[in-house]
Amino acid sequence: MTIDLAQRAYDRSARLDPIVRSLLDTDFYKFLMLQMIWKLKRDTRVRFGLRNRSNKIKLAEVIDRDELSRQLDHVRTLRFEKNELIWLANNSFYGKGQIFEPAFIEFLCGFQLGPYELAEKDGQLELSFDGPWTHTTMWEVPCLAIVSELRARAAIARLDRFALDLFYSRAKAKLWSKVERLQALAREGPLRLGDFGTRRRHSFLWQRWCVEALRHGLGASFTGTSNVKLAMDLGLEAIGTNAHELPMVFAAQARDDEELRAAPYAMLEAWTRLYAGNLLVLLPDTFGTANFLAAAPDWAADWTGARPDSKPPVEAAEELIAWWRSRGRDPREKLVILSDAMTVDTIETSVRALRDRVQVSIGWGTALTNDFVGCAPADLDLKPVSLVCKVFAVDGRPAVKLSDNPAKFLGPADEVARYVKVLGYRAGERREA
Amino acid sequence: MTIDLAQRAYDRSARLDPIVRSLLDTDFYKFLMLQMIWKLKRDTRVRFGLRNRSNKIKLAEVIDRDELSRQLDHVRTLRFEKNELIWLANNSFYGKGQIFEPAFIEFLCGFQLGPYELAEKDGQLELSFDGPWTHTTMWEVPCLAIVSELRARAAIARLDRFALDLFYSRAKAKLWSKVERLQALAREGPLRLGDFGTRRRHSFLWQRWCVEALRHGLGASFTGTSNVKLAMDLGLEAIGTNAHELPMVFAAQARDDEELRAAPYAMLEAWTRLYAGNLLVLLPDTFGTANFLAAAPDWAADWTGARPDSKPPVEAAEELIAWWRSRGRDPREKLVILSDAMTVDTIETSVRALRDRVQVSIGWGTALTNDFVGCAPADLDLKPVSLVCKVFAVDGRPAVKLSDNPAKFLGPADEVARYVKVLGYRAGERREA
Repeated sequence: MTIDLAQRAYDRSARLDPIVRSLLDTDFYKFLMLQMIWKLKRDTRVRFGLRNRSNKIKLAEVIDRDELSRQLDHVRTLRFEKNELIWLANNSFYGKGQIFEPAFIEFLCGFQLGPYELAEKDGQLELSFDGPWTHTTMWEVPCLAIVSELRARAAIARLDRFALDLFYSRAKAKLWSKVERLQALAREGPLRLGDFGTRRRHSFLWQRWCVEALRHGLGASFTGTSNVKLAMDLGLEAIGTNAHELPMVFAAQARDDEELRAAPYAMLEAWTRLYAGNLLVLLPDTFGTANFLAAAPDWAADWTGARPDSKPPVEAAEELIAWWRSRGRDPREKLVILSDAMTVDTIETSVRALRDRVQVSIGWGTALTNDFVGCAPADLDLKPVSLVCKVFAVDGRPAVKLSDNPAKFLGPADEVARYVKVLGYRAGERREA
Repeated sequence: MTIDLAQRAYDRSARLDPIVRSLLDTDFYKFLMLQMIWKLKRDTRVRFGLRNRSNKIKLAEVIDRDELSRQLDHVRTLRFEKNELIWLANNSFYGKGQIFEPAFIEFLCGFQLGPYELAEKDGQLELSFDGPWTHTTMWEVPCLAIVSELRARAAIARLDRFALDLFYSRAKAKLWSKVERLQALAREGPLRLGDFGTRRRHSFLWQRWCVEALRHGLGASFTGTSNVKLAMDLGLEAIGTNAHELPMVFAAQARDDEELRAAPYAMLEAWTRLYAGNLLVLLPDTFGTANFLAAAPDWAADWTGARPDSKPPVEAAEELIAWWRSRGRDPREKLVILSDAMTVDTIETSVRALRDRVQVSIGWGTALTNDFVGCAPADLDLKPVSLVCKVFAVDGRPAVKLSDNPAKFLGPADEVARYVKVLGYRAGERREA
């Protein structure tokens, strides 16, 4: 037997095993949004905060606060590597080269993450980030990935060497059985599916394995990964466009009700000035989809597609199809990206129901990169936590998110009520977020 | 990433990757039998030969003959290591220390395997070993393990790195799902199960993993392994007693029909002079169980147990239970070892049917160490081959085996006919061997 003495010595040393090891280990849409923020809103202060929607799970009882601090501190030591910036600057994304301008790359050169505030309350972690939006926005994904992996590490710490081997073997077998179902789905008709699983992953290396499994199993049906580091390392497409934080901040900055009503569309206009083509994906649900679509200017129906995020997928797609039809557009030329809590079951159902009527693309998240139910020999709590890191405040004013599912509402009650009234929110069905 | 330069350089060199790396990598019963052969029959010449009962599988088309030669040549270079002989001499087996006498250990000191003859005929490998029984007997297990692993290597050579990872992950998950069924079986009542899977294993390292899985999963229900090297390395019980070659050689040496009739029992008497207790396990089927039991001397019913090897397990156990009863012995104090093509299904059925009526112990072979059906992403031929290495001739005279299943008969037709007549063989049911 060969022993790598250096490896063994390293393994047993008490050094930190960092969860996030590169500033590229984040979702691609963060860079698209960051360029816009840097161009248009570099003086805006935004406070982000962690929120655990699975509040029965007391995270502070599972996760060691000192270890969490050490992991967060480690991310603050990271800088973009030269090869990473060269790749960002010169790789093509969605078929277009140099979408990041040289001055923005220059800005990234000096970039580092700012401070965080960490406390505990009622068994939950209180983790927040205050500072320039350009900096706090970049905490979202690493902060979620770190908390998610620390929880997984705590759960599997009870497993011995053999049980760990079995644990990962079963997880690989389990994922591959899903890939085989997707292969069958792809044989029936078009399938487009990519990895959106960075934020709630079990670990970086496990996400990497999942991505490689999709590449091996799905070939051309695999659209790529939202994880920029994995896209670079594995030579895959980096995917994703934008998130709720943009309309939330634009809305929070509105000086009156009229500006609030216009805010979601003002944000879209700003986006169009920067990006084109496949990057034009509407996120219609930030303040409720029905009212958003009804009030949308006609040019919004020219966008490439939409990503519904808080309604059952087929219902959400039907609503978009009807809207495109009502605006005289052909839905078969439009793209619907489904990425809200997709499982292999809902992927099959949605793709079969929709693929002849609209272009469908799946952004597969937690059920791809963190599904270990039934994989441990012992009974471990491995159910992923529905954790988000959201905008809490903008320049000192509270931020609001409505969405189509009232369980996902964020913000103080009076502000939520104002948004509901001003934007004409139509009540949706409450579901577990 | 850390690279072990020495390992990489070694991996890419064209050196042989030996399948059998120790003379202890064989079944324990070989040593028990060898000591008896060395004491009583050291001048007997026995010719062993490979026989593929799955004759639709053309082994010579799958296995490279040069590679097979290199593997066999490598085994001929092996000697017993000093630590191996110290362990053999001083470990206790079945609760008894020093069952191998010093002169026998001395004999093993100078032991090495003799020459082999290798040819091809009709797509099959013709592999045989001629020489002193003390030496040809020790070829059986390494020769089978080598052919079995070479076939597995040929099958999986088509898999890339990712597919191999998935292949073994699925195999581990598959084995563990069997272990979970056995855990449930053990919760219902007594279970005794050990590894008998050396000869038809996928590989040595895979057998080792399987054995470790049984140890982790079954605890006290796991009786040990027939593989001496694994027993030594992992600190497990080495298990097994004797095989068909003993009565076959004793019978082949009979000078007339009367001696032939007495031969199976003469062999048992010789065995009793050497061993006691748990090593007294009858192998009743060499020339047919019904006639063997009917003609057996009464002291044979005092033996600890029996290992039926060519009848459906419950039927075979019922026959033994009835025999012990007819001889006035209490079957609940007797041991039945079931080791013929056991699967998790037949283990469950047999144990449930028998455990209140007799002591049951399972010797789990091929379905433990070589079940990869459904594990490869591609459609590979991974069905194990029913391969045996049997006595063909004794001092120039043909050897015969009948068994309870006519598909397992061995020997020239006229000799088979003589054995059937002289020993009063009663026709059994023919099944796939």
